[in-house]
Amino acid sequence: MTHFKVNEKDSFFILKEQLNYGSLCNLERYRELDEETLDMLVTEAIKFAKGVIAPLQEIGEDSGVVFEEGQVRCSPEFRDALKLYGENGWIAASRNTRYGGQGFPHMMRIVINDQMYGAAQSFNITPSLTHGAAHLIESFATEELKERFVPKMYEGEWTGTMCLTEPGAGSNLDGTRTIAIRDGDHFRIRGNKIFISAGDHDMAENIIHLLLARIEGAPEGIRGISLFVVPKIRVNPDGSLGEPNDVVCTAVEKKLGLHASPTCALNFGDNDGCIGYLCGEENRGLAHMFQMMNQARINTGVTSATLASLAYQNALVYAKERIQGSDIAGRKPGYVPIIDHPDVRRMLLWMKATVDGLRSMIYSGAFWSDLALELPEGDEKRHYQSLLDFITPIIKAYCSDMGFKVCETAIQCLGGYGYCKEYHVEQYLRDTKIASIYEGTNGIQSIDLMGRKMRVNDGALFKAYLKEIRGFCEENRNQPTLDDAIGDLSKAVERLAQVAGDMSAMMQNDPLQWASHTYPVLLCFGDVTICWRLLDMAAAAQRRIDGGEENDFYLGKIMQATYYAGVTLPVTMARLETIYRKGREVVEMPEEAF
Amino acid sequence: MTHFKVNEKDSFFILKEQLNYGSLCNLERYRELDEETLDMLVTEAIKFAKGVIAPLQEIGEDSGVVFEEGQVRCSPEFRDALKLYGENGWIAASRNTRYGGQGFPHMMRIVINDQMYGAAQSFNITPSLTHGAAHLIESFATEELKERFVPKMYEGEWTGTMCLTEPGAGSNLDGTRTIAIRDGDHFRIRGNKIFISAGDHDMAENIIHLLLARIEGAPEGIRGISLFVVPKIRVNPDGSLGEPNDVVCTAVEKKLGLHASPTCALNFGDNDGCIGYLCGEENRGLAHMFQMMNQARINTGVTSATLASLAYQNALVYAKERIQGSDIAGRKPGYVPIIDHPDVRRMLLWMKATVDGLRSMIYSGAFWSDLALELPEGDEKRHYQSLLDFITPIIKAYCSDMGFKVCETAIQCLGGYGYCKEYHVEQYLRDTKIASIYEGTNGIQSIDLMGRKMRVNDGALFKAYLKEIRGFCEENRNQPTLDDAIGDLSKAVERLAQVAGDMSAMMQNDPLQWASHTYPVLLCFGDVTICWRLLDMAAAAQRRIDGGEENDFYLGKIMQATYYAGVTLPVTMARLETIYRKGREVVEMPEEAF
Repeated sequence: MTHFKVNEKDSFFILKEQLNYGSLCNLERYRELDEETLDMLVTEAIKFAKGVIAPLQEIGEDSGVVFEEGQVRCSPEFRDALKLYGENGWIAASRNTRYGGQGFPHMMRIVINDQMYGAAQSFNITPSLTHGAAHLIESFATEELKERFVPKMYEGEWTGTMCLTEPGAGSNLDGTRTIAIRDGDHFRIRGNKIFISAGDHDMAENIIHLLLARIEGAPEGIRGISLFVVPKIRVNPDGSLGEPNDVVCTAVEKKLGLHASPTCALNFGDNDGCIGYLCGEENRGLAHMFQMMNQARINTGVTSATLASLAYQNALVYAKERIQGSDIAGRKPGYVPIIDHPDVRRMLLWMKATVDGLRSMIYSGAFWSDLALELPEGDEKRHYQSLLDFITPIIKAYCSDMGFKVCETAIQCLGGYGYCKEYHVEQYLRDTKIASIYEGTNGIQSIDLMGRKMRVNDGALFKAYLKEIRGFCEENRNQPTLDDAIGDLSKAVERLAQVAGDMSAMMQNDPLQWASHTYPVLLCFGDVTICWRLLDMAAAAQRRIDGGEENDFYLGKIMQATYYAGVTLPVTMARLETIYRKGREVVEMPEEAF
Repeated sequence: MTHFKVNEKDSFFILKEQLNYGSLCNLERYRELDEETLDMLVTEAIKFAKGVIAPLQEIGEDSGVVFEEGQVRCSPEFRDALKLYGENGWIAASRNTRYGGQGFPHMMRIVINDQMYGAAQSFNITPSLTHGAAHLIESFATEELKERFVPKMYEGEWTGTMCLTEPGAGSNLDGTRTIAIRDGDHFRIRGNKIFISAGDHDMAENIIHLLLARIEGAPEGIRGISLFVVPKIRVNPDGSLGEPNDVVCTAVEKKLGLHASPTCALNFGDNDGCIGYLCGEENRGLAHMFQMMNQARINTGVTSATLASLAYQNALVYAKERIQGSDIAGRKPGYVPIIDHPDVRRMLLWMKATVDGLRSMIYSGAFWSDLALELPEGDEKRHYQSLLDFITPIIKAYCSDMGFKVCETAIQCLGGYGYCKEYHVEQYLRDTKIASIYEGTNGIQSIDLMGRKMRVNDGALFKAYLKEIRGFCEENRNQPTLDDAIGDLSKAVERLAQVAGDMSAMMQNDPLQWASHTYPVLLCFGDVTICWRLLDMAAAAQRRIDGGEENDFYLGKIMQATYYAGVTLPVTMARLETIYRKGREVVEMPEEAF
């Protein structure tokens, strides 16, 4: 049986009943679209994910990646799937039609990725990176470079990478040492990059690296870093392929998961034969890259949420089928399916709520990104930009950490079978762990959230967030099935506001102590955001029930929300209090005492 | 560099300064031992683990287990190590000398396993199971069977297994369908077992299975299950090997971790040629097995705690060496080791405290087991037996779940490198996950704790636990560095007492709701137990400091305790309150709503 179990109904509930995503078609850019077309796109994505991508999951895990004589080889099925993926327009569904995109709303890229990553994450990393790399070229490079590179990438003929990390510079990119030497209208690149996803492979005939390097003589630090387009094989002005470009894969990492996704160490210009083209402004490489990285953070969230969702779905199927033990209350004779055991149901309900909450948070963020990008200039546009900026590190960190926890719980539901490869969930656990690390570790996300995001525009980002949740609580406070939970949410968000203020003061007065609290507080922000999204869905479900459409599906939306809020928010409140501890053990612990 | 990083000083601190394990030598059974001899045993175990076992970790992970033509093959290095392990007496260090044991205290088996499992868990499972199987024979079988099987097993010439699980009967052993048909002085065995660790291999010349089966005509349910000794190769009365015994390995599981430990599906008697010998009383098999399983649960705890300990040690070494980013408070110029970043220190301190707390809890339980077994009959003996019985499911479940969490955190500390096999911690994560599943899932442990353990002997077990913690709080309440934390512990334990009473009532009135709360409450018991053990160590350290021995090591014991209690107990208290929620979502959620 396929591992890929889509909960289409839950996804559409968020898109249509919670977010009313069809309303995006009122925006100028999407005037020619309608909700039905968006629905069809989602349905087609699911079909493609099921039919073409899902079979790659096992193929990839079985055959992995082979690195021999400097060549990286993937399964041939990956090459075929990539070709189809590009031809069917999945890479650039949300891009402008000018360079081969399909002009769908930005959020659809996330919705599509939700399906494609779930079907086979180790495959989908490649087209997803290709999109990111090509989009950078489209946004910042010269017209000539755009025309030379972007269409082939959007079509999936060539793939792309992001080359940031170096052996001595992981999270702090200001340590970048790769060098670019001016040579006429291009540059000679020399340096080493590591941890490059899809850095080398045989799935496509060329690989276009988007690479950070320092132009000879550039200022020290992050203000001296530029962005370059560096093909694996040189591309002639007419678009035909030329000589190899002196980019050599020297190693492929052996990893916990994502065995079919090559993570490469690349040497550029060892023989002084590596040519690169400046992309965007000189010394503005990091700023350009960050534009892409913000989107990548939401994309990282979706990889975790979708694997968590699958882990839950697989556990659910198992729990309904597996007969084991007697009913504790004697409701049924003989042995019963384990879904009848309350401790198993506890795990299932927690997973269901978490997964649905994470997905709603991500889709909401993606929806706001369209409003932020496509609304006409004004307060509303700024509001959604603020909301999006604020929630981005929460999406990245909370989805990855909670997604991992869901996978752990799913294994637990399956017992011994959960530990065996045959039942898929162990792979989700392994594959998803990277999400808490790449695109900035979750610790770094917490510093971004509690530092920069709280400060910029005089706190406008946090204010936008508060405004939304307060508005929701105000509007729904008299909803009888939800009022207790909404009351708790309201208290939690006010406490969060207090804590955020006190943390901002602490950042000034006692930055070390502050930095020891940022991550726990980020988790609290995640808890509150998820409870809000779950209760928002529950309110939508309640309106349906009030309208006469009572059924188990809507009831489940309400029960998952009150349960999650009921067991989570008291713990959130307690965790928030710990930032007021006097103890300074984290900061003051002598190194020798560890 | 070896993955195996022993924190010998921390272990000896628990053994000597916290528990005063030398006092065991006052017990009649250990009269001829002294503390120095015990210390030497620990030191020798560490030496052996480092020199002989630790190299197997990578060898095993690289070569795994090969299953071809019905034969399971392990690395030849495993066979050599097992031989040495047996010859050096590590299998039966704590067993009586009568059948080849060394007569050390029972707790030393746990202390030795702490080292051996850490060095290479996938190896140590085999001798550890061999001990368990042989000990069952020693405890319950006829003199003739003991002499025929036990010495060879304690010497490591033959290994042992536990054959409980069947395809249809995992956690509920009353579903056991393997059958035993009387045939003179022995039985013919027929049936299938799955998930049998070390079920087949080529590390030793014979394998002795301890197997649960139903004697033909026996009563239904658990009262009709008997225990059998079933060799892979028949053993003649003179001890020489005879014919194969119709035990066939049909499959080896592919697993998340423990790749060098064969987990086998075994068919017994497919050709009606499988002979078994009754071990102990007819139809009392489960009772006999449970005696071993209780010990196995503490042993399971130690596998997780030791991997967590190594994960922490590896993360610590990395954090001191890895240079990355600037000091947030500008205390040092340039880039700094990541241990200077408060968020990294937060993870390290939390890991250190957790690991030390888990180890202390386990060693304490092991220490009490000696008092329970070897004290003369009387109240004191009963007290320690109660304490041990109560804490056993907490050790099993809390160590495995928290050990996993520590491994996750260690990966996070290492960032991208943590995701790579080269840095070891990803393997600990994979290897340790099984501990929450086998020997009874953690959900089952929670039902044991909150059900049977609360009820038996009119609550004597919980009373013994309360008495110990209350005594500790009373004795140390005026300790100035610790009084806040001890005050919090005292409040938490009183709240726990209240919750335990209310849960017992709920078990009668509303067993479904009760069963939805047992696992969260078990976690609270774990939190409180660890805080107690950490504060107990801190109090011991404070006494040293008061005596003039101030140093970073003792300071670390105090700081880890106040930190852990400070960030944990408020959350514990909040979680405890959630059992009073009115919501019944877990129980009442319609199956179709999942």
